[in-house]
Amino acid sequence: MAEQKATNVHWHEGDITREHRQKLLGHRGATIWFTGLSGSGKSTVAVELEGVLHERGVLAYRLDGDNVRMGINKNLGFSAEDRAENIRRIGEVAKLFADSGVVALSSFISPYVADRDAVRELHENAGMDFIEVFVDCALEAAEARDPKGLYKKARAGEIKNFTGIDDPYEAPAKPEIHLHSDQQSLDEEVEVILAELTRRGVISA
Amino acid sequence: MAEQKATNVHWHEGDITREHRQKLLGHRGATIWFTGLSGSGKSTVAVELEGVLHERGVLAYRLDGDNVRMGINKNLGFSAEDRAENIRRIGEVAKLFADSGVVALSSFISPYVADRDAVRELHENAGMDFIEVFVDCALEAAEARDPKGLYKKARAGEIKNFTGIDDPYEAPAKPEIHLHSDQQSLDEEVEVILAELTRRGVISA
Repeated sequence: MAEQKATNVHWHEGDITREHRQKLLGHRGATIWFTGLSGSGKSTVAVELEGVLHERGVLAYRLDGDNVRMGINKNLGFSAEDRAENIRRIGEVAKLFADSGVVALSSFISPYVADRDAVRELHENAGMDFIEVFVDCALEAAEARDPKGLYKKARAGEIKNFTGIDDPYEAPAKPEIHLHSDQQSLDEEVEVILAELTRRGVISA
Repeated sequence: MAEQKATNVHWHEGDITREHRQKLLGHRGATIWFTGLSGSGKSTVAVELEGVLHERGVLAYRLDGDNVRMGINKNLGFSAEDRAENIRRIGEVAKLFADSGVVALSSFISPYVADRDAVRELHENAGMDFIEVFVDCALEAAEARDPKGLYKKARAGEIKNFTGIDDPYEAPAKPEIHLHSDQQSLDEEVEVILAELTRRGVISA
């Protein structure tokens, strides 16, 4: 340990690294990337997982429409170009969080394989965990839930290019985790993700 | 405390808030915004402060050219519009970190009052600490250091619109902290910032 005085503290051990932060927190940073249709239950799983991680002393942080679309991405619309840029920026922010030691929980539809794979590559090139969680749910089930009334508006033609209606959802071919939110319980879903985090050594058992 | 089983953990206490994360970490998140000329010593103070905070068990994370300009802002150039967008995005990212419980250390020249004030407003409107640290240094001293050889290039006309040479640096009128890096020691600078963090209750004494 470096010498420490009450009024004059020093740090002599070089730049603080990801490993220093991991040691401080007792866990590694990572990005958990939820993808799936609107209404599939991405945020529901993310919120529950956040609570369970907190209970275990793991610092997690959710990135979602509330704090991203109104913040860093508030100058983006819904053109193809802006949608790609939306996901790119979220991926870069998640990567910064993962680097800082935080478990970032990103929940956005993120319907295109190319955009998600670009975020994966960003993380993997930097030696960071990227865990893609496909929150799979039949369109009928998601549309029946329609928590925000968006499917209704899309069917009425009030929203254009809505994923699953008149814009495609490209399902992940090899997600780290494949949930079936119309068949599994919330507890089961969270357990599967915890097991993967433990298996990777992001968190301890 | 919620009941906890080995293989089936629940969280029943509602959404995790900033206060939950503060309790977990033992400190509050905040944004420390270093501003000053190129070569004024912003990064030097940020690196030292990061180490000292780490020594005290405080999770800090630096945002700088290395992880931002090459990442989330890699599609921005140096037009007036792009410079403003550069600072806006960094401010939004810092705010997310502050919200997550991390002490974000942002070190960018950020020469314009309007851009910095917009970032301040973002934080203050959300009830988050924004601590502007003016790393003041005579142009002559910064230019004499010229750690990246940028002043030399600017004087030779190889770099245009370089802050302090052919583009203005708008000094903060009322920064929370006013350092004089050409007169103070690094230890003194860090002590002043620690005192402010303690006074605000971001970290404990």
